[in-house]
Amino acid sequence: MTLRLLALDGPNLNLLGRREPHIYGVSSLEEIIARAARRASELGATLEHEQTNSEARLVELIQGAAARADGVVLNAGALTHSSWALADAIAAVGLPVVEVHVSNPAAREPFRHQSTLGRVVRGSIAGFGPRSYELAVQALVEIIRSTAHEAT
Amino acid sequence: MTLRLLALDGPNLNLLGRREPHIYGVSSLEEIIARAARRASELGATLEHEQTNSEARLVELIQGAAARADGVVLNAGALTHSSWALADAIAAVGLPVVEVHVSNPAAREPFRHQSTLGRVVRGSIAGFGPRSYELAVQALVEIIRSTAHEAT
Amino acid sequence: MTLRLLALDGPNLNLLGRREPHIYGVSSLEEIIARAARRASELGATLEHEQTNSEARLVELIQGAAARADGVVLNAGALTHSSWALADAIAAVGLPVVEVHVSNPAAREPFRHQSTLGRVVRGSIAGFGPRSYELAVQALVEIIRSTAHEAT
Amino acid sequence: MTLRLLALDGPNLNLLGRREPHIYGVSSLEEIIARAARRASELGATLEHEQTNSEARLVELIQGAAARADGVVLNAGALTHSSWALADAIAAVGLPVVEVHVSNPAAREPFRHQSTLGRVVRGSIAGFGPRSYELAVQALVEIIRSTAHEAT
Amino acid sequence: MTLRLLALDGPNLNLLGRREPHIYGVSSLEEIIARAARRASELGATLEHEQTNSEARLVELIQGAAARADGVVLNAGALTHSSWALADAIAAVGLPVVEVHVSNPAAREPFRHQSTLGRVVRGSIAGFGPRSYELAVQALVEIIRSTAHEAT
Amino acid sequence: MTLRLLALDGPNLNLLGRREPHIYGVSSLEEIIARAARRASELGATLEHEQTNSEARLVELIQGAAARADGVVLNAGALTHSSWALADAIAAVGLPVVEVHVSNPAAREPFRHQSTLGRVVRGSIAGFGPRSYELAVQALVEIIRSTAHEAT
Amino acid sequence: MTLRLLALDGPNLNLLGRREPHIYGVSSLEEIIARAARRASELGATLEHEQTNSEARLVELIQGAAARADGVVLNAGALTHSSWALADAIAAVGLPVVEVHVSNPAAREPFRHQSTLGRVVRGSIAGFGPRSYELAVQALVEIIRSTAHEAT
Amino acid sequence: MTLRLLALDGPNLNLLGRREPHIYGVSSLEEIIARAARRASELGATLEHEQTNSEARLVELIQGAAARADGVVLNAGALTHSSWALADAIAAVGLPVVEVHVSNPAAREPFRHQSTLGRVVRGSIAGFGPRSYELAVQALVEIIRSTAHEAT
Amino acid sequence: MTLRLLALDGPNLNLLGRREPHIYGVSSLEEIIARAARRASELGATLEHEQTNSEARLVELIQGAAARADGVVLNAGALTHSSWALADAIAAVGLPVVEVHVSNPAAREPFRHQSTLGRVVRGSIAGFGPRSYELAVQALVEIIRSTAHEAT
Amino acid sequence: MTLRLLALDGPNLNLLGRREPHIYGVSSLEEIIARAARRASELGATLEHEQTNSEARLVELIQGAAARADGVVLNAGALTHSSWALADAIAAVGLPVVEVHVSNPAAREPFRHQSTLGRVVRGSIAGFGPRSYELAVQALVEIIRSTAHEAT
Amino acid sequence: MTLRLLALDGPNLNLLGRREPHIYGVSSLEEIIARAARRASELGATLEHEQTNSEARLVELIQGAAARADGVVLNAGALTHSSWALADAIAAVGLPVVEVHVSNPAAREPFRHQSTLGRVVRGSIAGFGPRSYELAVQALVEIIRSTAHEAT
Amino acid sequence: MTLRLLALDGPNLNLLGRREPHIYGVSSLEEIIARAARRASELGATLEHEQTNSEARLVELIQGAAARADGVVLNAGALTHSSWALADAIAAVGLPVVEVHVSNPAAREPFRHQSTLGRVVRGSIAGFGPRSYELAVQALVEIIRSTAHEAT
Repeated sequence: MTLRLLALDGPNLNLLGRREPHIYGVSSLEEIIARAARRASELGATLEHEQTNSEARLVELIQGAAARADGVVLNAGALTHSSWALADAIAAVGLPVVEVHVSNPAAREPFRHQSTLGRVVRGSIAGFGPRSYELAVQALVEIIRSTAHEAT
Repeated sequence: MTLRLLALDGPNLNLLGRREPHIYGVSSLEEIIARAARRASELGATLEHEQTNSEARLVELIQGAAARADGVVLNAGALTHSSWALADAIAAVGLPVVEVHVSNPAAREPFRHQSTLGRVVRGSIAGFGPRSYELAVQALVEIIRSTAHEAT
Repeated sequence: MTLRLLALDGPNLNLLGRREPHIYGVSSLEEIIARAARRASELGATLEHEQTNSEARLVELIQGAAARADGVVLNAGALTHSSWALADAIAAVGLPVVEVHVSNPAAREPFRHQSTLGRVVRGSIAGFGPRSYELAVQALVEIIRSTAHEAT
Repeated sequence: MTLRLLALDGPNLNLLGRREPHIYGVSSLEEIIARAARRASELGATLEHEQTNSEARLVELIQGAAARADGVVLNAGALTHSSWALADAIAAVGLPVVEVHVSNPAAREPFRHQSTLGRVVRGSIAGFGPRSYELAVQALVEIIRSTAHEAT
Repeated sequence: MTLRLLALDGPNLNLLGRREPHIYGVSSLEEIIARAARRASELGATLEHEQTNSEARLVELIQGAAARADGVVLNAGALTHSSWALADAIAAVGLPVVEVHVSNPAAREPFRHQSTLGRVVRGSIAGFGPRSYELAVQALVEIIRSTAHEAT
Repeated sequence: MTLRLLALDGPNLNLLGRREPHIYGVSSLEEIIARAARRASELGATLEHEQTNSEARLVELIQGAAARADGVVLNAGALTHSSWALADAIAAVGLPVVEVHVSNPAAREPFRHQSTLGRVVRGSIAGFGPRSYELAVQALVEIIRSTAHEAT
Repeated sequence: MTLRLLALDGPNLNLLGRREPHIYGVSSLEEIIARAARRASELGATLEHEQTNSEARLVELIQGAAARADGVVLNAGALTHSSWALADAIAAVGLPVVEVHVSNPAAREPFRHQSTLGRVVRGSIAGFGPRSYELAVQALVEIIRSTAHEAT
Repeated sequence: MTLRLLALDGPNLNLLGRREPHIYGVSSLEEIIARAARRASELGATLEHEQTNSEARLVELIQGAAARADGVVLNAGALTHSSWALADAIAAVGLPVVEVHVSNPAAREPFRHQSTLGRVVRGSIAGFGPRSYELAVQALVEIIRSTAHEAT
Repeated sequence: MTLRLLALDGPNLNLLGRREPHIYGVSSLEEIIARAARRASELGATLEHEQTNSEARLVELIQGAAARADGVVLNAGALTHSSWALADAIAAVGLPVVEVHVSNPAAREPFRHQSTLGRVVRGSIAGFGPRSYELAVQALVEIIRSTAHEAT
Repeated sequence: MTLRLLALDGPNLNLLGRREPHIYGVSSLEEIIARAARRASELGATLEHEQTNSEARLVELIQGAAARADGVVLNAGALTHSSWALADAIAAVGLPVVEVHVSNPAAREPFRHQSTLGRVVRGSIAGFGPRSYELAVQALVEIIRSTAHEAT
Repeated sequence: MTLRLLALDGPNLNLLGRREPHIYGVSSLEEIIARAARRASELGATLEHEQTNSEARLVELIQGAAARADGVVLNAGALTHSSWALADAIAAVGLPVVEVHVSNPAAREPFRHQSTLGRVVRGSIAGFGPRSYELAVQALVEIIRSTAHEAT
Repeated sequence: MTLRLLALDGPNLNLLGRREPHIYGVSSLEEIIARAARRASELGATLEHEQTNSEARLVELIQGAAARADGVVLNAGALTHSSWALADAIAAVGLPVVEVHVSNPAAREPFRHQSTLGRVVRGSIAGFGPRSYELAVQALVEIIRSTAHEAT
């Protein structure tokens, strides 16, 4: 069965490739998502994508994710470190969510060392540039497949 | 004179009844508001209602509340514990605001033990499930009536 | 069936009406309890009352509450913010306890922003002056009735 | 007019003279109070005295002080550093209260460096052994007299 | 060459002149911006303006500022003290940003003593009422002009 | 020579056996003390016992212990973590005091991880259910005997 | 009427232009003051100036400022972040004081993120290099003139 | 059935009797273990013993304990207050572990007031010198016996 | 024998009577010292006095005090809460020092709740306005006399 | 060219599959490594493996890794959250290191929310059970290959 | 070439030999400097010296050091732990500065465990009594010589 | 008499000269020790040396040092900031220990600003590169010689 994945990006990730390339690299978000979608396709999955700078929109995308996807790859940007509303939304829906970061937040400013979302996501992948998304897609596919298998 | 009340709900409260029922109970937000509206009606008041996942929208509803209501019942969800903008809006308008929670935040995760809004609301009611809203309506009506009485 | 409620007040609440009226209002504790008892009566419940300045006495009243009441309205005054012994007593007995405050502690000194009892009470009502007690009586009656109903 | 002063001592101060004399000296509480009473007498004042190990009793003595005294000399012992109930009682009554300590708490364990009562007392005298009480009596008499004078 | 400046205002600043005038003064935001625009005009610059209560909108206005302005005057209101997303946006675009406040946050509640944006703005001006904006316009013009001069 | 021991129990320990048996076990305080007294008897000692919910009473029992006992087994319950008055009393009297707990406070809520009494007690025993008391009796007897022996 | 302004500089500001030019720029304090004085002159004001490395001297200059000036531009250097004595002096005299910084302290080491003086100054201007002083002069003149106008 | 106990000692406990005797007493570790073994023998148990200064060795001894013992008496020395690896090992094996200390850590330097192991041990005994070990042996035997009994 | 006392005042105390009279009262420092000197004279002592805004000068006055006085009354103003150098000087000289304050620092801003000097002074007197100095003189005389008496 | 990878596991990871399976799953470390080695093989890489409970051994394995591998997959277990020595070793060698965890530390006890190694590793993968290792192998291969490519 | 060294001593160091000799030893500052000067002379260097109790004077001596010395030995006394102004001065001048202490601050009160100057000095030597200065002279000479050598 | 010194190096110091030379310099540990041994020889002392990455080994080397040396030069690397076991070992043996660092920890990451060993070492020398060891040897020789001299 084809899995449906949803990649969600938060504030400022639309600037990837243009914003501080020494930290975030030179790939644009479109290129990163395209690569991740190819990986998804190789694994028998589709990958939808949305970027928003709005916490509220992100909350609503998470709320509505169950209707259109089997799992979520989430890069919440700076909201990763402050949004309890987003964490509440993830806890409320039953989907597996994988936290992903292009850079390695643990090696940056102190406020990026704690994830408000950590408590409710299934796992996290950080620091591998555009590859973080591909790895997250792969992790998500394997998690969903193995859970389905166990449930059979 | 008929009092006009406004019930405002913040992020994720549209999921009530579906979200973690062992914490939040099985009533939907619509049912909860319907019960609260009946109580308002019994007390000679009307109850308008809006839910939003957006901090900005919530700020604007508070800003505009004076034009359409005599008091506000506010469940800001996770924003209760982080939104200084919402607190500033409440301080800016002259209306009495009652903070309300379905669950008892003081018995949950530490980040829910402090209310950013506490400094500016008139009072708070928490932990009584759907009944929290009915009690808040009642508290609000009595506060407004007694203040009006004193002002006469 | 007639419900039996118990209202317990802690340190300095015997001074209500005389103590800092700009914070606590002008009603005496006797008047407040009388109003709360009328509300209880309207709801088919009785309301006993005791005030004490002693943490030990308060612990013992909580311990003995199960023998004489179906639920407790508790204003522990300053002990709200420091008494682990009182919290232990509430956790030990099976009765629903509603925390109540005349003023809004969240809008006062920082030490009043955290409730040591919050972890173990059923819910809390604060900031509505004498009406806080009436609302607490009402909340308690509804909680007990609905629980009884579910248990049937 | 004869002034009426009340000296109140909290937990463990009944042990003065016997308890850790390298910290608290060798005078008993009775001797200390006797000296303080002589000083009061020289200044045209009487000095009543009570010691209790109970926070509740101390709260009640403060509550009732207005009926029997024009001012209070208070050594709350270890409660100095933890009792919000006592602070609330002092704030509630209108009498001037002088905080007094035999030893110098600021030179002892860290928990003794902050006074919960500091916010509500008129002033404090610490570190002069039995003389702390005599000085406190004197300070209290002068404060009360000068206030009376101004009020005339 | 005419400089293009952009003034951005965050949550609740649309209430200026009506909100707590003892803190924020009696000038409306429109009046303040009009005065700032006159000052800009005197200095050979234009001043566009937007106010929003939305963090997401503010992030997007910052992201898009480079296309329409040479520098930004930013009053982020309460978001000044909490929004890492806004700070990330400022760091991502290359424009000089001047933080501005009508009141003096350092003299108000503790949460206003730290600026999340401080790390990424060029400078800040606070406490001069409506004049803060005029001074910020002037500072921005001088910074941009001197940088341009150096770059020649 | 027969040793005289005193077991003192603080707030809520009268509920042992009835209160949260998954934490505290099913033995009542009477049964626990009876077992401890038998152990004392086997070791040539007597064991008196008092339980109180009052901090003041506990302070006074400690103050008076020297007149009736050679050592104290103390379970101060929740006061273990907050009572400086009790710590002062223990420091003031010369008797060895053994802190005892039925459950293991270090494995429970954070507020139970620090003992206010730790600084002044001779030692502590925690986590062995009713056996904690028997072990404490035994520890106390051995300490007193060995000290007496050394003093000879 | 000609306004008299006083510019006061604290520790190490005599090194401006020589000290860490990547942070503080290449203008000497004399040049900066000369520019600020020209700006003052354009606005119908005079600008006196003193620099000292001494907290005590700074305290005294503030104490004596009322006798020679209508307002103060103050760059207290590192004392900005630690001197309560300076803050007390500012609070004691009635003059408007504008805090000024060449660099942007909020973007530097953490100890520079809090201003001990913030509570008592009228406003602050930071991060604009030598221009910070000119803007401060301007801000001060406008504040004084508008206050005088209102007082008339 | 003969019970098999294992006593494990961590860093610097090989120095007992030589190291700071005013804190740790004059008994050598060998003497202490010999006494504890005698007590074990009286209770129908054997006591093996190992001391190591290595956290890794201690982790491995805990890991392998299930194959050779029914319970562990553990004095981890300074590692008590920092080793999460040791805590993880204890949580991983199913054996009851009793934490033991010769001195009373709660009465020493602040870093000794918190036990990293507290969360995972069955109970703790501290402050009774060499007797701490004997009491721990006894506690362990009783715990194991009573659990076995319940399991029958 | 005539005792020689030295009263030392730190930063901003030269403003007493003019500075924030609602906090510090209307007496000038000269008047306060004159009253304290009269009290000293009545007790057979002389009182020299110096005020300085300089921490260094205060350190040197303390260092040199032994050559000219038998004890010191010290009001270090804001330095009370920050000067380790002053504390070191007091510890270095052998004279008794009494800390004195006109207002009650414990009832003011949080930074005034801790005294850096508390560890090294003999005692403190605070909150009695000008009388604080008179009481301090008296306390100092009695301390010195009683110590001399004991030394005989 | 064949890449050489090294997988290093720290304390207690030898217990995988046996230790708390509700947290860590049922796969043994051998099975997990076998799967990861297969993934490495598919990607043209070899995977060596060592587990140790010793921080020192882990430091030395990191120090020696450059001689035998092109990159390291590191699960330091509990040392992740405390070992500065390990972080120093990683910083000292030039190899890319990927931090990996079977469970999701951010969703467990607070001490697991901060990684001492985060500052020096290339990236991290956590929460995917045995798959975490496979993903880490893949991430490492891609990072090394792309870096080699860029270097050509 | 003869090196010129400058030894600077801060508050209370003029008391060395007289002040708390159990901490600071019995050598006077003059003797310590004489020994350090002899050591300097043996190494082909001269040693000037100044002591001051004034932070401002110390700042100025550091500012002017470049004109008279090749390096500085600095014992700032209690200012070591609080003076940002001094740290700024050291950062501003280009000279190597060696921090020196007679006692070992890390073994004394907590406030002495952190050095405000640590960030900007070249190195530090503490705990060797008068020898600390000789070692510092030696360290400074070697640093300056090796730097000069490298620069050739 | 020939003095016997022992130089002990902890984790990662075997990498000196290769590890981050901009921080630690280009000298290898062997070269540094050779220089230090020459200095020891000039002073009539021998210098043995051991490096280990193991905390346990370091503890044991300290424990056994008394049998082979008169004093210890210790560079515990990252363990300096976390090892209570090492601190306990130093406190347990009677030898003087000098803490030494090649770089200046006070100028690096915050975790390096506090030394766990500071409380128990005789003194410390940091920041002088390889010379730190030579200076430490010299300090140690002088300390031991002067102590021996005083003991005669």
